[in-house]
Amino acid sequence: MLFERVAILGVGLIGGSFALALKEARACAHVAGAGRNSANLRLALERGVIDSIAADAVAAAHGADLVLLAAPLAQFPKLLRDVASVLGPKAVVTDGGSTKRDVVAAARAALGRKIGQFVPAHPIAGGEKSGAGAASATLFQNKRVVLTPLDENSETTIKKVNDAWSACGANVARMTPEEHDAILGAVSHLPHVLAYALVHEIASRDNGAQLFGYAAGGFRDFTRIASSHPEMWRDICLANRDRLLAELDRYGERLQAVRRLLEAADGPGLEKMFAEAREARERWIQSS
Amino acid sequence: MLFERVAILGVGLIGGSFALALKEARACAHVAGAGRNSANLRLALERGVIDSIAADAVAAAHGADLVLLAAPLAQFPKLLRDVASVLGPKAVVTDGGSTKRDVVAAARAALGRKIGQFVPAHPIAGGEKSGAGAASATLFQNKRVVLTPLDENSETTIKKVNDAWSACGANVARMTPEEHDAILGAVSHLPHVLAYALVHEIASRDNGAQLFGYAAGGFRDFTRIASSHPEMWRDICLANRDRLLAELDRYGERLQAVRRLLEAADGPGLEKMFAEAREARERWIQSS
Repeated sequence: MLFERVAILGVGLIGGSFALALKEARACAHVAGAGRNSANLRLALERGVIDSIAADAVAAAHGADLVLLAAPLAQFPKLLRDVASVLGPKAVVTDGGSTKRDVVAAARAALGRKIGQFVPAHPIAGGEKSGAGAASATLFQNKRVVLTPLDENSETTIKKVNDAWSACGANVARMTPEEHDAILGAVSHLPHVLAYALVHEIASRDNGAQLFGYAAGGFRDFTRIASSHPEMWRDICLANRDRLLAELDRYGERLQAVRRLLEAADGPGLEKMFAEAREARERWIQSS
Repeated sequence: MLFERVAILGVGLIGGSFALALKEARACAHVAGAGRNSANLRLALERGVIDSIAADAVAAAHGADLVLLAAPLAQFPKLLRDVASVLGPKAVVTDGGSTKRDVVAAARAALGRKIGQFVPAHPIAGGEKSGAGAASATLFQNKRVVLTPLDENSETTIKKVNDAWSACGANVARMTPEEHDAILGAVSHLPHVLAYALVHEIASRDNGAQLFGYAAGGFRDFTRIASSHPEMWRDICLANRDRLLAELDRYGERLQAVRRLLEAADGPGLEKMFAEAREARERWIQSS
């Protein structure tokens, strides 16, 4: 048994799947859940995602040897202060936040001398479904989890957190919070914003209903991530604002380049760009 | 039997699926295929997609009572002239082109007094796979096919073409070529260009391989249409250039609006936009 008592703060898709995966791996004895939505917590209890509902984050973290923060990012500062108030000396803390620089800053501010017990993590898995009802023991299977360890972390502490994510079936990688936020800004945060923007643009037109009526499979897949959790993505966008702004600008320049090809009716230029994009994507799909 | 001899000019995903669907419905006796790629035609023959390989479009269309043009759009003017040279008085012609104003103009130029025999069509179905190997008898099942009939079409002619697409399992709608190109520019052509542009942007960076290494399911679905046929999409973009440029500009303005929300760190504004987009998409998914 890796852990006796696991506290999940925010029992949604990520937190619930982490709990289910640890249970499936027989890596923990008891999971206590806390969160804002009591109906969601009751559902988590009924589904066996958690074993008990804690009154709040303090009560959940009390006596836990592993704490996972899996709420939307804006709640992290408060949750980290709650955790700090009861965290035992042998306990470790990790998180499922989609950005890392802001989480590290909030953790430093809240945990003080206990900062070495926190190993930041980002499981690169998810989906547009949210809540404990969407949680699955296999969500992290063969998915990447990025750890961004701190100078204050001992190798023992990092190993404990690494083992927890590995027990969930994930492939664990390490990088700095800066690298993480730059990479995810490009391949995750930018496309989410692009998808939200397209759906919003179409929906805002007078003939929006007609337009949706002729949208097909390409549009459906392109915009799947526009069904993602609005509050969660608000927080991600704000937390990674500088990188996302830079990505939006680069993408805007790329669209201007496409615009110039179109304006010039440059068939060979368009075909070259499309062919290069297709080749790059096919290489990626085949290697992943 | 609706048709005795069907000529498919371009036996790819669309042309091949049309042939398979008509055969499945026992709506045609013989399918002759023509195209540029002889290996693809042999595959189509082996798979039973077509019953014979014609030497060229003229030979395929000779004696046919239904002709489908399903090659990339840039080939349409030549193919239509070929068809015009042998088209019998009772034969009807339709197409699978993704734009309609340019196809109608090319048909008027090539078919002359036979223009009334051509009923333009666009099956709103497809996928990023191409070629006869990807053809399927069920591709058009419950999918929309838009007809953009001409003033010169008799109701009898329109009905013949309508019946052919209905036999493929499609739901047939009618509109003008102008309406069609405006709608598809927004919900199909624009997202294809956006997806190609994102993959190209990521692939062109020095750390492109690392970036792809952390791309997940959201990126995969968002960019699925960037694996589409480059030549086909070159032709669509050129054919619908004015509408696509207008769509790119509107989308660019929308991204600027998102940029301003981000710049101002306007959390409520971002969340409102994301929530409205999600609601609109969920309504669409549930109604489709």
